[in-house]
Amino acid sequence: MKDIAKCNKKLEGLDFGGLYGDDFLLTWEKSAGELAALFTAADALRFLRERNIATRLFRSGLAVSLFRDNSTRTRFSFASACNLLGLTVQDLDEGKAQIAHGETVRETANMVSFMAELIGIRDDMFIGKGNAYMREVSRAVREGRREGVLEQRPMVINLQCDIDHPTQTMADLAHIIHHFGGIEKLRGKKIAMTWAYSPSYGKPLSVPQGIIALATRFGMEVTLAHPEGYGLMPEVEKIAAEHAAKSGGSFNKVQSMEEAFDGAHLVYPKSWAPYAAMEKRTALYDRNDVEGIKTLEGELLAQNALHQDWECTEDLMRRTRDALYLHCLPADISGISCRQGEVAAPVFNRFRSSLYRQAGYKPYIIAAMILLGKFKDPGKLLARLAERKKPRVLS
Amino acid sequence: MKDIAKCNKKLEGLDFGGLYGDDFLLTWEKSAGELAALFTAADALRFLRERNIATRLFRSGLAVSLFRDNSTRTRFSFASACNLLGLTVQDLDEGKAQIAHGETVRETANMVSFMAELIGIRDDMFIGKGNAYMREVSRAVREGRREGVLEQRPMVINLQCDIDHPTQTMADLAHIIHHFGGIEKLRGKKIAMTWAYSPSYGKPLSVPQGIIALATRFGMEVTLAHPEGYGLMPEVEKIAAEHAAKSGGSFNKVQSMEEAFDGAHLVYPKSWAPYAAMEKRTALYDRNDVEGIKTLEGELLAQNALHQDWECTEDLMRRTRDALYLHCLPADISGISCRQGEVAAPVFNRFRSSLYRQAGYKPYIIAAMILLGKFKDPGKLLARLAERKKPRVLS
Amino acid sequence: MKDIAKCNKKLEGLDFGGLYGDDFLLTWEKSAGELAALFTAADALRFLRERNIATRLFRSGLAVSLFRDNSTRTRFSFASACNLLGLTVQDLDEGKAQIAHGETVRETANMVSFMAELIGIRDDMFIGKGNAYMREVSRAVREGRREGVLEQRPMVINLQCDIDHPTQTMADLAHIIHHFGGIEKLRGKKIAMTWAYSPSYGKPLSVPQGIIALATRFGMEVTLAHPEGYGLMPEVEKIAAEHAAKSGGSFNKVQSMEEAFDGAHLVYPKSWAPYAAMEKRTALYDRNDVEGIKTLEGELLAQNALHQDWECTEDLMRRTRDALYLHCLPADISGISCRQGEVAAPVFNRFRSSLYRQAGYKPYIIAAMILLGKFKDPGKLLARLAERKKPRVLS
Repeated sequence: MKDIAKCNKKLEGLDFGGLYGDDFLLTWEKSAGELAALFTAADALRFLRERNIATRLFRSGLAVSLFRDNSTRTRFSFASACNLLGLTVQDLDEGKAQIAHGETVRETANMVSFMAELIGIRDDMFIGKGNAYMREVSRAVREGRREGVLEQRPMVINLQCDIDHPTQTMADLAHIIHHFGGIEKLRGKKIAMTWAYSPSYGKPLSVPQGIIALATRFGMEVTLAHPEGYGLMPEVEKIAAEHAAKSGGSFNKVQSMEEAFDGAHLVYPKSWAPYAAMEKRTALYDRNDVEGIKTLEGELLAQNALHQDWECTEDLMRRTRDALYLHCLPADISGISCRQGEVAAPVFNRFRSSLYRQAGYKPYIIAAMILLGKFKDPGKLLARLAERKKPRVLS
Repeated sequence: MKDIAKCNKKLEGLDFGGLYGDDFLLTWEKSAGELAALFTAADALRFLRERNIATRLFRSGLAVSLFRDNSTRTRFSFASACNLLGLTVQDLDEGKAQIAHGETVRETANMVSFMAELIGIRDDMFIGKGNAYMREVSRAVREGRREGVLEQRPMVINLQCDIDHPTQTMADLAHIIHHFGGIEKLRGKKIAMTWAYSPSYGKPLSVPQGIIALATRFGMEVTLAHPEGYGLMPEVEKIAAEHAAKSGGSFNKVQSMEEAFDGAHLVYPKSWAPYAAMEKRTALYDRNDVEGIKTLEGELLAQNALHQDWECTEDLMRRTRDALYLHCLPADISGISCRQGEVAAPVFNRFRSSLYRQAGYKPYIIAAMILLGKFKDPGKLLARLAERKKPRVLS
Repeated sequence: MKDIAKCNKKLEGLDFGGLYGDDFLLTWEKSAGELAALFTAADALRFLRERNIATRLFRSGLAVSLFRDNSTRTRFSFASACNLLGLTVQDLDEGKAQIAHGETVRETANMVSFMAELIGIRDDMFIGKGNAYMREVSRAVREGRREGVLEQRPMVINLQCDIDHPTQTMADLAHIIHHFGGIEKLRGKKIAMTWAYSPSYGKPLSVPQGIIALATRFGMEVTLAHPEGYGLMPEVEKIAAEHAAKSGGSFNKVQSMEEAFDGAHLVYPKSWAPYAAMEKRTALYDRNDVEGIKTLEGELLAQNALHQDWECTEDLMRRTRDALYLHCLPADISGISCRQGEVAAPVFNRFRSSLYRQAGYKPYIIAAMILLGKFKDPGKLLARLAERKKPRVLS
């Protein structure tokens, strides 16, 4: 991406109008053209910021954030994206309790949205709940808009749910695109999405699910590997297979890191909890079964411990085609952040700078989601900003 | 309100200069003209925002918020209002402990105000404390300004105290004014401010008190109803009676919802705690008497439970003149948010959209308070904004 | 400071280029010219704000704040300074646990900095940790910038560490400079930095250390007094002595408030914990020795109680040359905020307004640190702002 005119030319060739006025909840609800447009817009926004050109599109407006789980990098990415475009983040702090339903959700969603352009939600702890909650919020504010309660409809952005983590995986893909030099270069590239051992338990499924469903959109050869019992949601695996069939890529499952790494251009080894266990845990929380939760946690840790050999080592990396190592961070690094973890220190250290840059795409991906979700003619806007050249920082 | 010129004509006819440079702590400290000017300014600000015209009056400046009790809708309304005008909210988090006094208040008030234009305070838990605290803060920053400590005097805005809840009741009135089509249409309209049953206890008195004191300003026929023992502060009832006498309205007390609803144009059924119990509770907190507080809570719940028939049902609504149902939200809805509550689900559902719109006036009311409290010639400013037409959201 | 041209003339005479692109961690890492430039820039920013001239230098950008200890006045001063220049504060909330190290610090520092211009850190609880942590953060973001992870390097500002409290002491000095009418008037002025009794324990050493190291830069006669066993860090005392030798001032230690106050132009009586005890406490926290911490606290309180006569009274004030009383606030005021404390009520009351004004320099000092740390030609910028005269508040 060397200039805004080029970017706009790219945008003109893409059909992305479906993004306007809609939420961003799951990548597979968006067309390949829409996703390509987002990558392009993210590059354009970065291009402008790198040249100290202000991109304030809002003179006022709130961006509501609702984090039902801890977050540092997504919180700051969201804050950065909003600030870049002129929105002010207002946090809705409801604690981490299981979420309210029905009337309360509908009412709160409207009460915080009178001047809100955006609602970003993280709700990833309970299977079957997070994404459903986001849709409930979205329905509530659509209805509020329709009935004249709200002067604008806030866009809902998924900042990680039980199913997908679109701001993360889109940032991951942006990094991969830049690594290979273009979205068209992804075709035929082999990516290994594998489980890896971690001494903690209960990590969400949203990243591996999001990666297999997204990478298969662009003709990549996606291999999923995990120990027995660590399966993902079957419906998401099915989507990945369909995507692969349609895009001319592939989606395979294998039983070991070794197989997955063989000949890979990209590896993404990362721990997650078994889908079945997450479902069980959600049910236990529903019943407030503290004893049951403790027991389950013990079982999960014991189950994890059987697979300590699922670690990304330099030996394994040598099986790849000089692969790029990916992670959503923070990683469990053997001998550094834990005794034994997802990745050996030499591998992590070799890729640290790359991993940080991978994370650096997230603010721009979120800003691009806002730009294309809230503005009818983003190309014209980008061109106008580039022409005006209002400095972001005075000098 | 169809345009800014009309609004300014209205403002020209009103004497509202007393708002400038002053706080907003109790509606009855303001003249009827001043209140009318606030409704007009709120409409004007909404008019501009609806037409995508930016209303940023501050290029920098803090708005301090201090919430000594939970808040979602007032917090977001305050944030929205400040953001609309260009102020940045900075929260002063002191926990919910009973408030500091004397030196500490004076010092903290000045220390947070070096660049503050505004201090919004919610302090509604303890009888005799909240409003007094706001006045202490106001005195401190006035003194700070006088002595050259502060470069500007921050305006203090009551975001709910033990006595009044002006941002709520002014928003309620704005909704009523729009319902009837003008402030002059309020004369002779009958409003029933009634207690209603709730399975929780200890709800503040500020809303019913604020409503009887405010509605009586505009010639309305105000009827207050509650079970025996649920009286409001006698001094506020006295104010309501005086207002009614002066404005040509009326203020009556009756013993049942039925009587209050008969022929009403507006009903506002809402739970609150008995004034005497709130005083007792404040004394118990002062002594840190945990056992006493528990006992009192049990007594209050038992006392409430005697009045479960105080519920706003469709049967009761049929006694009214097709009345508008009002509530400050969240309501205790029978069979939805609780087993048995303040309002039957069919009534609530029928008015949901109206209730949400009622709440939607609050950001504009707060913004109007700031506009008229901080700017000498708000009419000129509004005209200038309307003329400039800087878009709030670029397009 | 009567106008911006004068200020710029002052700046032209000073060599302060070393501030650009650097952090602000310890005052003694900066040259006297650099410190003088900061005082000048702070005055210029105040001059503009007092004349309602906007000083927004950033159209977007985050200022990360990380408070590892409670803070009200520094938090609001930081928020005010950032807001004045157009930055949005985003708080990084990591609790007050002892800090992370190594990989975690490096990673978090980069993850929050993709669009951050600034990181303000308070970390004052543990000897040998706070300032070291700030340097670790600084190294991490420098490396991130160098490796292309970050598009800009966020400046790190010390908002109080275990060694120094530069935003406080620079504000104190600004107050002193204005008291005497110019930085050149400080030469020969006698300041008594003395310990004072407080019923609490464990107050940081950063203020007394910062004051003796800073006041000695400008030819002042600095006297330090404290009871036996309340010594400061020896290396900071050494720095103070070196500064005094170089600037033509002096640095003396005496055994009593009386001696220190004799003939003083300025007195700064303030409680702090013994350095040795703070070191011991840090070691106990490192071992998580809860019992040991409790025992130490008891010992410290008992040790403090032996020196209740170290109180700043009017009797003591009469020994001075009509000295200005200084404190960083909040002070322990005898009979007001505690039974027996650092200062007698009549002294405090007589200087309250002055103390508040002393605190009022802090937002401008922080803003000046940002201005000179982030902008290559601040004089030109100030002149441009003064010329443009964009109103901060519309009217």
